[in-house]
Amino acid sequence: MNLVVQKYGGSSVATTERIKKIAQKVSEKNKSGYKVLIVVSAMGKTTDSLIKLAKEISETPDPRELDMLLSTGEQVSVSLLSMALQSIGLRSKSLNAFQAGIRTTGNFTEAKIVSFDQEKILTMMEELDALVITGFQGITEEGEMTTLGRGGSDTSAVALAAALGIDCEIYSDVAGIYTIDPRLYAAAKKVKYITYDEMLELAGLGAKVLHSRSVEIAKKFGIKLYCGSSFLDEEGSFVVDENIIIEQPVVTGCSIMENQTQVFIKNLPVDYSRIKDLFAKVATENLNVDMISIINMGTNLEVSFTIVQEKTKHINAALKKVLSDLEDWNAEFYSGFIKLSVVGIGMRSGIGVASSFFKALEKIPIRLVTTSEIAISCLIEEKYKHQAVDAIVKEFNL
Amino acid sequence: MNLVVQKYGGSSVATTERIKKIAQKVSEKNKSGYKVLIVVSAMGKTTDSLIKLAKEISETPDPRELDMLLSTGEQVSVSLLSMALQSIGLRSKSLNAFQAGIRTTGNFTEAKIVSFDQEKILTMMEELDALVITGFQGITEEGEMTTLGRGGSDTSAVALAAALGIDCEIYSDVAGIYTIDPRLYAAAKKVKYITYDEMLELAGLGAKVLHSRSVEIAKKFGIKLYCGSSFLDEEGSFVVDENIIIEQPVVTGCSIMENQTQVFIKNLPVDYSRIKDLFAKVATENLNVDMISIINMGTNLEVSFTIVQEKTKHINAALKKVLSDLEDWNAEFYSGFIKLSVVGIGMRSGIGVASSFFKALEKIPIRLVTTSEIAISCLIEEKYKHQAVDAIVKEFNL
Repeated sequence: MNLVVQKYGGSSVATTERIKKIAQKVSEKNKSGYKVLIVVSAMGKTTDSLIKLAKEISETPDPRELDMLLSTGEQVSVSLLSMALQSIGLRSKSLNAFQAGIRTTGNFTEAKIVSFDQEKILTMMEELDALVITGFQGITEEGEMTTLGRGGSDTSAVALAAALGIDCEIYSDVAGIYTIDPRLYAAAKKVKYITYDEMLELAGLGAKVLHSRSVEIAKKFGIKLYCGSSFLDEEGSFVVDENIIIEQPVVTGCSIMENQTQVFIKNLPVDYSRIKDLFAKVATENLNVDMISIINMGTNLEVSFTIVQEKTKHINAALKKVLSDLEDWNAEFYSGFIKLSVVGIGMRSGIGVASSFFKALEKIPIRLVTTSEIAISCLIEEKYKHQAVDAIVKEFNL
Repeated sequence: MNLVVQKYGGSSVATTERIKKIAQKVSEKNKSGYKVLIVVSAMGKTTDSLIKLAKEISETPDPRELDMLLSTGEQVSVSLLSMALQSIGLRSKSLNAFQAGIRTTGNFTEAKIVSFDQEKILTMMEELDALVITGFQGITEEGEMTTLGRGGSDTSAVALAAALGIDCEIYSDVAGIYTIDPRLYAAAKKVKYITYDEMLELAGLGAKVLHSRSVEIAKKFGIKLYCGSSFLDEEGSFVVDENIIIEQPVVTGCSIMENQTQVFIKNLPVDYSRIKDLFAKVATENLNVDMISIINMGTNLEVSFTIVQEKTKHINAALKKVLSDLEDWNAEFYSGFIKLSVVGIGMRSGIGVASSFFKALEKIPIRLVTTSEIAISCLIEEKYKHQAVDAIVKEFNL
């Protein structure tokens, strides 16, 4: 029995017309000799609409009840897709999280998948051409409904593929993985192969094709991921282990995070346990900080980091709380920045990437630089975005 | 632990504003010393919208997939109501059919409830003020989703009350049970008590307050039913065993079924096995026939019955199939009738109800009469509706 997992996102099943087209796509895969396990998100903006309803009832809805509410969205789309598959002659059934035994941890709204009822799924596939399974959701050991957080359906699909040891195809609006977001640079090239590590860096640095968690699972279990277009007939991209790729350019991609604000906190006492408390507080408030730098001025510390602009108020409130016993310190906020990063496993061997990077950007004032093993990032003013992208694309032939 | 079941229909939870009002109503019951088990329908016209989506995919959607789809509606409303209850300080949780163990038979779209997980429900209630449970749906022993058919949430509520041996309150747009539909006769009186049998007759004869199945279960298990308004502060009606009612008028109510067509089939051979086949065919096609009369003319049979007007085409097709080997027979259809019925357990002692009935209607041409133990019905032309209702209301002081 040849099995494959296919995942379709919300915009791919946004209308009944699109659901019928997806059914055709599944049918083609079926005719090519595969039985298909399909993981589906909720239709279009369903999840957002449900969250809006919940907020009308309560500003801070109970996470358990919120998951009970949100998990209905995928149950609607799996049943409709299964009907569409049946209506073109495929033997199909839909399963929700209870039925597929999608066991998760108990942290509502951000649960993690523990296991599937593989035996049931495999037994059902004996009699079926396609099985449509709800993405984004699961149940705890006690039978409570959970959801996996944003991007959760990608995670569901890859985790299912990992549980069964089969390939996973992720379909969306985007026809594959590009060296740079085509909305930023129209002539962006699609890559045929990218490694798990590069994809993880790109996802973490703002690329929106695949959710990091799903890439992590694929890497851990060595699941071959394919990213392609739901509706276009062009070949997409593969995310694979690096030893599968024979020759890889030094830099595989470039990504941009917009609306960055740089926060400077000045005149803090030289007391690193306070710094620890500060970032712990920031973490518990779910404020993602990035590009952290701490400078010891001898008599005092200067801390700076970046944050997405809309969180400026929250950060300010958090700082005031955690530094309430201090005087003299002050925080300054500088908005209007972007973070530009280049990623590539070729950087590990390291020959000249940094120097090419700075050469490309020599005419642009760089405010801050950070590096990881396979990425270099810099913070620059928003107004230099297109100039910087053009220079990087040219320099690294993206 | 004082427990009570409350059921709220779709229009009572159609908007988040209404859901908040329902939460207040539950809270009042809670303050009066009861823990409340709440059974809820899907919001407003949700079920109809979901059916429309399914029909866009397939004219004849698979019943299993349809139930998977439709059961999402109640899961949305239970979670929202539970949030609303929490936001005014009640300890509340929601449960879907899997979680409440609502076991049903396996006939999709018209399943029957077998049992609840009473132990789990009672254990949960120890820690809660309110528990909100999805109406209309269940699961089979194999974990398949089922629905109970139209009016199914009434059935869910009463079955739950029966399982726990507690009272059941059904709330809707209508403030109780009336001697006659207030839309037909504005001065209709609300009854304080009505017996199960009378309610069953009235439900069967077109009254829309309670679904027959729910009344049957209430009767079987002796569950006291209360019907009242979701939003108005006036007392409703009780459906109870007849020995609870000390004095009851001979006639309790009058109901009307509109759009009736009388079907005459003439020139059939005197062969009752064929008549059996005819009605068997009609039943398998889900065509409800009523007021059946069969006359043996010596050399042939004449069969007549009534049917709701929009089913005329279906009946004609069914007749042509089952009588295809016969010649000479013909069917005639007469539309534009209503069926008017009066109901009352007082009729059992029987003194003069029929004579009062015919006296009231003496100026109206009656086409057909049928009787049951506690009801008399007649078929009359639509144009006499108001005249007949006025006369009956006056005669029986309804």
